[in-house]
Amino acid sequence: MIITLLTDFGLSDYYVGSMKGVILSINPGIQIVDITHDICSRNVEQAAFVLKRAYSYFPNGTIHIIVVDPGVGSERSILAVQTDRHIFLAPDNGVLKYIFNTHPEAAVFQVTNTSTFLENVSRTFHGRDIFASVAAHLTKGFKIETLGKPFREYIVGGIKHPIKEPGGISGEIIYIDKFGNGVTNIEEVTLMDQKKIQVRFKSQILKGLCKTYTDVPAGEILALIGSGRTLEISARGASASDKIGLQVGDKVTVTFD
Amino acid sequence: MIITLLTDFGLSDYYVGSMKGVILSINPGIQIVDITHDICSRNVEQAAFVLKRAYSYFPNGTIHIIVVDPGVGSERSILAVQTDRHIFLAPDNGVLKYIFNTHPEAAVFQVTNTSTFLENVSRTFHGRDIFASVAAHLTKGFKIETLGKPFREYIVGGIKHPIKEPGGISGEIIYIDKFGNGVTNIEEVTLMDQKKIQVRFKSQILKGLCKTYTDVPAGEILALIGSGRTLEISARGASASDKIGLQVGDKVTVTFD
Amino acid sequence: MIITLLTDFGLSDYYVGSMKGVILSINPGIQIVDITHDICSRNVEQAAFVLKRAYSYFPNGTIHIIVVDPGVGSERSILAVQTDRHIFLAPDNGVLKYIFNTHPEAAVFQVTNTSTFLENVSRTFHGRDIFASVAAHLTKGFKIETLGKPFREYIVGGIKHPIKEPGGISGEIIYIDKFGNGVTNIEEVTLMDQKKIQVRFKSQILKGLCKTYTDVPAGEILALIGSGRTLEISARGASASDKIGLQVGDKVTVTFD
Repeated sequence: MIITLLTDFGLSDYYVGSMKGVILSINPGIQIVDITHDICSRNVEQAAFVLKRAYSYFPNGTIHIIVVDPGVGSERSILAVQTDRHIFLAPDNGVLKYIFNTHPEAAVFQVTNTSTFLENVSRTFHGRDIFASVAAHLTKGFKIETLGKPFREYIVGGIKHPIKEPGGISGEIIYIDKFGNGVTNIEEVTLMDQKKIQVRFKSQILKGLCKTYTDVPAGEILALIGSGRTLEISARGASASDKIGLQVGDKVTVTFD
Repeated sequence: MIITLLTDFGLSDYYVGSMKGVILSINPGIQIVDITHDICSRNVEQAAFVLKRAYSYFPNGTIHIIVVDPGVGSERSILAVQTDRHIFLAPDNGVLKYIFNTHPEAAVFQVTNTSTFLENVSRTFHGRDIFASVAAHLTKGFKIETLGKPFREYIVGGIKHPIKEPGGISGEIIYIDKFGNGVTNIEEVTLMDQKKIQVRFKSQILKGLCKTYTDVPAGEILALIGSGRTLEISARGASASDKIGLQVGDKVTVTFD
Repeated sequence: MIITLLTDFGLSDYYVGSMKGVILSINPGIQIVDITHDICSRNVEQAAFVLKRAYSYFPNGTIHIIVVDPGVGSERSILAVQTDRHIFLAPDNGVLKYIFNTHPEAAVFQVTNTSTFLENVSRTFHGRDIFASVAAHLTKGFKIETLGKPFREYIVGGIKHPIKEPGGISGEIIYIDKFGNGVTNIEEVTLMDQKKIQVRFKSQILKGLCKTYTDVPAGEILALIGSGRTLEISARGASASDKIGLQVGDKVTVTFD
């Protein structure tokens, strides 16, 4: 059985280590996989996107723990979500928005069964005292239905979709990766069967749609379909973000002829 | 069987990878858990604190390797410490001070049995050549008593305790985490049964003792009991360290009425 | 079975997590070990060196995936290399140069068998769509010979060797680690049996050859044999790189008397 972790805890403190200790104390046979712990502190949006791009590659039965939780200790609920292939444990703050959007079959429960928590739950570290403990119990045969009641009032969260315009489509950068690539919300499928594609970014017309980085000279900006099947603004052998300055929310326009 | 690693090696070099290779070459079935490798270079105090906060969550029989070792290659000893539930391998430099303090039952051995080391031990990387190799041998049935003689002259290390004052208690910040929370050495138990608690920090009177972050408006500084059951100086939805400047050693005063 | 990962993907995005998901979906029993993901973006030289220092500590049968791949999506080949004890999967860009140099027995194959790839291979993320998938298939009994044809035109890559000079040897810094140590390409064996060794760096004569850091006062620069059995420029209890400025390529001269 596999449990994945996606948090904003960083790797320098004792937070991630103690979560793993809790899991392995309850079920020593579990394989724990870090998706990332380097989400910017309290950035729910960033966590939602990284989850979207990673979760589906894991085997059936994987339990994903997502703890980016600015409301920890408040009255916010904790959700357990069963989809066709996976279980997700997360605070009710919209971090699962892409999961809800992709999985209409999802069954959502409000986690309230304290028998699956650590004793003496702290007010500030539910990742250890609730999420890790609940996930480990699930791997031991505990049924998701017993964690709490079905829950309908969860925060769905808003997804920014690109806008169809006369002769094209406009979207925006929704994520910037370690390499300085700007990932947009314009999906490959919306560009298929279009004859002549022009990509405009910051009043520049990019060479595009390229197939791969080496379609342009070293250092040049290009637009191509990235590994998540959406349009990306990149630079060959360099960081597009360093070269021309990318920010989440920057508008990208595609025109067809 | 589980081996945990806590070092100042960082994750960018080949140090941690080669330690894991050594362990798995000796015992391929071992589960290795990183507590952290991001201790500031040679910061024994920081490592001692992170260990204190993480180790107890691991199952019985876990072996903890701690390598923050400015004296590597010198005459400093290497310790193997058996407590009621765990084994600790660390250089003799005070990094186990909280373990010694909490576990009077600890049996301490000086690691000298070179048959459990790699051949050709280097002068600069005992993490790989001694610690990893010794830990892996312990998981294969090697007894701790055979690593070397019982050892009494180890460095106990000093722990800064808060000071009781007329009408209150004063302590200090002993750790600052990734979120900019200042963890103090003032324990929750010393504040219990007190009626009116006031927390003073940097000539400011904080709203406190709060139960959770959402007890104050966004961005405001507060004092609350953190996940390690000690007083923390925090900000709601922000880094207290960025906002008002926190440093290890900063004084925190609590008064009762 | 063990698969190691060495990339420049960083740990903040979804790249490493999705590679692990792919591997575990194909073979859930695999142990995955991160060597590092913090290679500087597209720095093939740095990756080659870290691999050289880490790979040999892993057990027989380990599969090493190396993805530092500025040519992803172009016509560059993907190599599968079988040595006496390990398998290496890497782009054909010289990142395996130390492996080729150390292992004349290596059998090299060009990976072309798409039945071991994910469906719908992207143009930008072969780490997930090819490398992870191929490695996982190898752990399930897939033979390396079936991945593709033997390949002879691979990039061998150049290795900078030190130069013998009258009365000495001169080399250079080839890697700077997290502690600010400058690792040189001057091997311990070339210094053995020499009576009086003097190390010159930046027109300074260093105390050397020291046995260990504590041979000099705190903060002082020294030269010693590091954990990879080559000469290193270090400082006791400090970063030599911060103190005197180290750069890859800096010349180091050793004279004998």
